[in-house]
Amino acid sequence: MGEKHISSLGITETKYLYFKNELGLESGEQLSNITLAYETYGILNAEKSNAILVLHALTGDAHAAGYHQNEDTPGWWDLMIGPGKAFDTDKYFVVCSNVIGGCKGSTGPSSANPKTGSPYGLDFPIIGIKDMVNAQHHLIRGLGIKQLLCVAGGSMGGMQALQWVASYPEMVKSAIPIATTVRHSPQQIAFNEVGRQAIMADPNWSEGHYYSSSPPTRGLAVARMIGHITYMSDISMADKFGRNIREEKSDKKFSPDFEVEGYLEYRGDNFVKRFDANSYLYITKALDKFDLAQGGSLEKVFRQAPGVRFLVIAFKSDWLYPAYQSREIVKACKQAQLDVSYYEINSTYGHDAFLLEGTEQEHFIGNFLKRTYNEQK
Amino acid sequence: MGEKHISSLGITETKYLYFKNELGLESGEQLSNITLAYETYGILNAEKSNAILVLHALTGDAHAAGYHQNEDTPGWWDLMIGPGKAFDTDKYFVVCSNVIGGCKGSTGPSSANPKTGSPYGLDFPIIGIKDMVNAQHHLIRGLGIKQLLCVAGGSMGGMQALQWVASYPEMVKSAIPIATTVRHSPQQIAFNEVGRQAIMADPNWSEGHYYSSSPPTRGLAVARMIGHITYMSDISMADKFGRNIREEKSDKKFSPDFEVEGYLEYRGDNFVKRFDANSYLYITKALDKFDLAQGGSLEKVFRQAPGVRFLVIAFKSDWLYPAYQSREIVKACKQAQLDVSYYEINSTYGHDAFLLEGTEQEHFIGNFLKRTYNEQK
Repeated sequence: MGEKHISSLGITETKYLYFKNELGLESGEQLSNITLAYETYGILNAEKSNAILVLHALTGDAHAAGYHQNEDTPGWWDLMIGPGKAFDTDKYFVVCSNVIGGCKGSTGPSSANPKTGSPYGLDFPIIGIKDMVNAQHHLIRGLGIKQLLCVAGGSMGGMQALQWVASYPEMVKSAIPIATTVRHSPQQIAFNEVGRQAIMADPNWSEGHYYSSSPPTRGLAVARMIGHITYMSDISMADKFGRNIREEKSDKKFSPDFEVEGYLEYRGDNFVKRFDANSYLYITKALDKFDLAQGGSLEKVFRQAPGVRFLVIAFKSDWLYPAYQSREIVKACKQAQLDVSYYEINSTYGHDAFLLEGTEQEHFIGNFLKRTYNEQK
Repeated sequence: MGEKHISSLGITETKYLYFKNELGLESGEQLSNITLAYETYGILNAEKSNAILVLHALTGDAHAAGYHQNEDTPGWWDLMIGPGKAFDTDKYFVVCSNVIGGCKGSTGPSSANPKTGSPYGLDFPIIGIKDMVNAQHHLIRGLGIKQLLCVAGGSMGGMQALQWVASYPEMVKSAIPIATTVRHSPQQIAFNEVGRQAIMADPNWSEGHYYSSSPPTRGLAVARMIGHITYMSDISMADKFGRNIREEKSDKKFSPDFEVEGYLEYRGDNFVKRFDANSYLYITKALDKFDLAQGGSLEKVFRQAPGVRFLVIAFKSDWLYPAYQSREIVKACKQAQLDVSYYEINSTYGHDAFLLEGTEQEHFIGNFLKRTYNEQK
């Protein structure tokens, strides 16, 4: 038996926190009757000092690890969370919280508007990353946790981790923002905007009122296909597909000829079965509007969190969230004299690397957590 | 007065070549009653040794330089073509030929099918880059030109230039492929495929039969927006838009907030006024299927063209047609012992650089043409 166990958590399940309190939103609006979906793995110790909050990306959910009953696919970060893994559930109590605005069990535009009893649609208020974090704050306090050993996540999960540091610095011992940024570049905004336009161009979208009719599946599929291209790298696509021709060929003109086309179509078609088009609009808008320093100095944000230790990870082939955006975080941490480690992992997976890269990422995160946990004891 | 004149060609106009002969296509099908739109600038010398064929990109046209009557915008490569410019019309006879499959005066899916009298729609045969070149061959022979001093173009124009070398090596003295490739990578195919899916997802597309009803403008606009993102670079978008908020604000949720969003919407809306959705399908498919060496050796292709001199140009920030694709051309030219020069211009404009970069590109092309022209005399 080596030191590293690769066993899984086995069967896990999603829980739901409901709170009636109104949540004041960044937009100035209020949201009430909020449900938040979450999962927990491992055991919270008596001192409540071993809790880690893991945060998901755009289309993720609370199911980060283990298997749901009768499902073959594990949670989205099963590679990293479990007994003996980087987020070692033998040692840590790992919480994964879904975001408001989504469609994975938490309150979002497809939820019933308490005022009407019908789905919100576009009456759902515009939400920001900060609002997602404020909702999660209810959950963490509800679990009796006063300080998180770590907040961690990739992509939008990294933004939430950063926002946790900015909003609740005293509640965060350490943060691991991965493949993320403190604010979207115009290119990142542009890709999201085209996805939104594809959804809104679908006549079935009907200004967001499609819950009792056919949803805008074709528009949402196009949005997802655009996303998929940006999650992979030029190299990973070349490795996976090359210019291979599809075996299934249709006589129809402009049906997919190449494997890469068939793959995108398959991913688009699958996605629409599990995601709500309005949630896609709301969450991508939250991503685009996010600006950790709110136009001000990033150093100043981090100076308000002098006790937080950082591990920042980027991937060389990630062109959607390029490494220079992670280095900007590192630079500001250093200016604020925080304890920060930075790794730029030499992966070819592109942005998806945070979900797929095992060994190195696991090693960096595992060691960082051990060091942080041991020093606080 | 310096050596360099920057005066324009003044008023230019599009001409049309019609030929009844059937053109055998790569697909095995035939196309007849072909019209080809083209423009010419400068004067063909008595020896007919000063002709240059300039080839356009995906959505370009025959109008490469000068101004059309009552129009404010010059041709797409006016920066490079004119008296004293890189393609010096005081010395050279410059021809710009439109492509078949398009909608800019040449035969394409919106043209009348001679069998029915109605627009082809999807009855138009699938065409390839080789077919575009074969149609242009009729034009060049029709103009009495036995050998072109140069074939030149960026992006899809570069592919046509390369195909001219492969198809008619004895008719080409030199070639300038710019920001191009000998075959699309899966990432390049993927971006085109998503554009096609956006068009075909628009119910107005009606399997291509929309010429007597409303065209699929929303789908085509989305396709164009995707294209625009890939034509610019992360840096050029940051320079041009940053995270600037739009002045015109709508109260409508998910209307553009950022300038970059407004710009994309504007470019999308403008595009649909001047381009046919079916042509977008046919031409992007021609791009994706293009493979100069047809799965074989590129060196072998170039060995069939021992007399052709090459100038290959790429741009550092072009991530749609990355420089490594141009270096692959250079490498094969060298293996085939051709005379090849290569420049990787340090531009921030991304793929659009071939249309926008003046000084350096002009200098390299101007000198290359002078040398080629003087040596043949």
